[in-house]
Amino acid sequence: SIGGSTAAESPIVVDPVEELHRPLDHVFEAQQFDRELLMKLFDLTRQMEKITPNSSGSRMLEGFIMATLFYEPSTRTRLSFESAMKRLGGNVLTTENAREFSSAAKGETLEDTIRTVETYSDIIVLRHFESGAAKRAAAVSSVPLINAGDGPGQHPTQALLDVYTIQREIGRLDNIKVGLVGDLANGRTVRSLAYLLSKFDNVQMYFIAPEVARMKDDIKEHLTANGVQWEETGDLMDVASKVDVIYQTRIQRERFADRVEEYDQARGKYIVDKKTMEVLPERGIVMHPLPRLDEITEEVDTDPRAAYFRQARNGLHIRMALLKLLLLGW
Amino acid sequence: SIGGSTAAESPIVVDPVEELHRPLDHVFEAQQFDRELLMKLFDLTRQMEKITPNSSGSRMLEGFIMATLFYEPSTRTRLSFESAMKRLGGNVLTTENAREFSSAAKGETLEDTIRTVETYSDIIVLRHFESGAAKRAAAVSSVPLINAGDGPGQHPTQALLDVYTIQREIGRLDNIKVGLVGDLANGRTVRSLAYLLSKFDNVQMYFIAPEVARMKDDIKEHLTANGVQWEETGDLMDVASKVDVIYQTRIQRERFADRVEEYDQARGKYIVDKKTMEVLPERGIVMHPLPRLDEITEEVDTDPRAAYFRQARNGLHIRMALLKLLLLGW
Amino acid sequence: SIGGSTAAESPIVVDPVEELHRPLDHVFEAQQFDRELLMKLFDLTRQMEKITPNSSGSRMLEGFIMATLFYEPSTRTRLSFESAMKRLGGNVLTTENAREFSSAAKGETLEDTIRTVETYSDIIVLRHFESGAAKRAAAVSSVPLINAGDGPGQHPTQALLDVYTIQREIGRLDNIKVGLVGDLANGRTVRSLAYLLSKFDNVQMYFIAPEVARMKDDIKEHLTANGVQWEETGDLMDVASKVDVIYQTRIQRERFADRVEEYDQARGKYIVDKKTMEVLPERGIVMHPLPRLDEITEEVDTDPRAAYFRQARNGLHIRMALLKLLLLGW
Repeated sequence: SIGGSTAAESPIVVDPVEELHRPLDHVFEAQQFDRELLMKLFDLTRQMEKITPNSSGSRMLEGFIMATLFYEPSTRTRLSFESAMKRLGGNVLTTENAREFSSAAKGETLEDTIRTVETYSDIIVLRHFESGAAKRAAAVSSVPLINAGDGPGQHPTQALLDVYTIQREIGRLDNIKVGLVGDLANGRTVRSLAYLLSKFDNVQMYFIAPEVARMKDDIKEHLTANGVQWEETGDLMDVASKVDVIYQTRIQRERFADRVEEYDQARGKYIVDKKTMEVLPERGIVMHPLPRLDEITEEVDTDPRAAYFRQARNGLHIRMALLKLLLLGW
Repeated sequence: SIGGSTAAESPIVVDPVEELHRPLDHVFEAQQFDRELLMKLFDLTRQMEKITPNSSGSRMLEGFIMATLFYEPSTRTRLSFESAMKRLGGNVLTTENAREFSSAAKGETLEDTIRTVETYSDIIVLRHFESGAAKRAAAVSSVPLINAGDGPGQHPTQALLDVYTIQREIGRLDNIKVGLVGDLANGRTVRSLAYLLSKFDNVQMYFIAPEVARMKDDIKEHLTANGVQWEETGDLMDVASKVDVIYQTRIQRERFADRVEEYDQARGKYIVDKKTMEVLPERGIVMHPLPRLDEITEEVDTDPRAAYFRQARNGLHIRMALLKLLLLGW
Repeated sequence: SIGGSTAAESPIVVDPVEELHRPLDHVFEAQQFDRELLMKLFDLTRQMEKITPNSSGSRMLEGFIMATLFYEPSTRTRLSFESAMKRLGGNVLTTENAREFSSAAKGETLEDTIRTVETYSDIIVLRHFESGAAKRAAAVSSVPLINAGDGPGQHPTQALLDVYTIQREIGRLDNIKVGLVGDLANGRTVRSLAYLLSKFDNVQMYFIAPEVARMKDDIKEHLTANGVQWEETGDLMDVASKVDVIYQTRIQRERFADRVEEYDQARGKYIVDKKTMEVLPERGIVMHPLPRLDEITEEVDTDPRAAYFRQARNGLHIRMALLKLLLLGW
């Protein structure tokens, strides 16, 4: 079953008793999280920050086995999940070679692979190259499954850690101003972030993107329908001077294929540097999903408002919280 | 030393004192197991099924290190062994890149690699591309070694889990009727299964294979010599109506190379589907070593007699039992 | 910070209080170790030899996470480090695919990767293809970092295990005679060994190498400046008859590119075989960093003076000692 409900279309759990303990069977998309669930998850995440080697809680998942089933390499995401499991005392089975299950010669379906891997493990973390793969996998899995990115589809733990970072750094999610910069057309990250922030009150967004990478209409319409004020602009300095968060992203070269000129044009147009930091409010922050190239200059790294490596660490804590939640409940 | 005996040709241990505790030094081929040893192993395997996270026994291999030394990827087999070790509290070192040890530039012998890896670990699980590699490795290894498949040679843990599955599902190994279907010429699995079943009484086998993939004469002669009745037939429905076990296998495309026509001809000739299940006796089962393509249709999956995913889980328990046996004895 | 001191040029720690507890922040080059530190490290290493599964000390690193961050595969080195960590009860995150962090499309700097991986782990083991990479990484890492080989640069744990092996087998490092044989021009190993031995008294070295692979002048000059007597010769039998240690190395084919003739000429010129062992003193030993091809014949393996597999095991113990030292101090 998906999300504890029978209808795959409404995956948020509604059963009031179940919700007290294990509100989710699987995590496959950001849409599973409403405002209340987010806040409870963030409270749990905050507790996870206190767990250090051998501290109380550091063995809560002892004896459990997590399988990281990756159909494409994503070392950063994989290590973050595996660290999260180990920080809680759990075990890990790992493969970045999961395509071997379904290689041309063998041709196993994803569903059969899940039915096999669930015999080895207590929870599955899936990375796949196809949009919707995680939802298909969750539909047959008898153990909890977490989506670690399925192609151009969802990457819900990234979206959660982004929102958590804003909450943790700024202290609130209502009444914030956020500037999204860079590859807004192709970036799974910024699309999910915009979606999740629309659940909060009085959010103001600024979109700053090169012509070829502008935010798409579906998100704009969703924001408008949910009362989020948004504005497209080319003036990074003006935005920087008035926001709580600059969320910078990398222009994704791999999505331009051989259109090198377009890529070169897009890249380097909006750089966060020392001058940007000079106008950013004192309590504002700069975020980035990493890896970064030169869209944030290295001189910014030592500024206490540079939050991107703290953001990576928050990813670890969000994943610890999700593992705890799916295996042990609240 | 191999199998605790000095002669490599008779690997079954005969020392009566040693047998009480550790009947095997290594597991490299199905022939090491006689009827009595199989039954004791299956009793131990049954105990392994009861071990869950944090239950009694779940830490019996704490502190031990297993090295999975794979010269070719086999994610399914690797994860099954690694899960088995972790379910018993043990640690794992893993490589699917073991060819690097003996790469062209470096040219280390398998024997030298084993002498190195044994310094890191308490038990070695070896997957190799050459027939006989496991026996060579066991001959020099000072720690227990398990063969996880050596090319066209042996894959003894698969053979053991197959026999265990029949015992567990049907309740006996004497007086059974088994239909072997599919790639009987090339399938390591069905050859080993036929061999092991020949140790039991009143076994009746049916071979159902396309012309190009018929069971080879060596096995037929072995069965005849050991009093096993066997019959070749093309009538899957007739066989299905009277057997305890249908053991279906995938036609291995990779062994046909570019003879595409032959492959297409062979494949799809004998499919287990809903109609097959209608004639299969109520207490009969369908087995498959996995992965499957379409030689068992998906509609069969929900039938309680579809035993193939339980069979995968049995593989985990057989491997737990072998690890326990080789490291701690009975 | 590097080595606990502010000046990167003098990495040996001088703070007397700090030295009592944690004399090193990172291990990136053999030059960090002076005679006194070596002796203390070897005492600790000797204690590590006594740790067996579930013995006292076997859980001293419980709860800690080591990340093995490999930019090129080196299965032998990786498994040795990972075994060391696990022998002390610690956890491991592993990747041999670290180039993915800095792949063409993504282009992350090594420094950014370190800042990310340090959020997942308590200690980093780095293998890199560029000379100096470990020092650069250590300069930004907030967790201890160990160099597991950086291209043609350093491989300090190999150097340490070599010196430890001589100390352990011969009983002293002063007043020894050592014959270095094989690829002395390109071998990182023999260069580091010669360097470290120069810290001891009355050391006599013999260099036996094919014309194309002779020891380079920088090392010769360093030895002379430090009072080490050295001699170049082509007479392996004469050297073998009077040394405490023959350190044989493989002629590295990969460094000859397509100069096949030169390689063939170099290889096979100085072989350690049964005849060599006949003249070697009774308490002398043969060492080799492994893998070996045929520069030591297999007939030598059973001679108790063949120390090369014991040397591999010493590598495990040296790495256990370093992990303990960097994470817990003396």
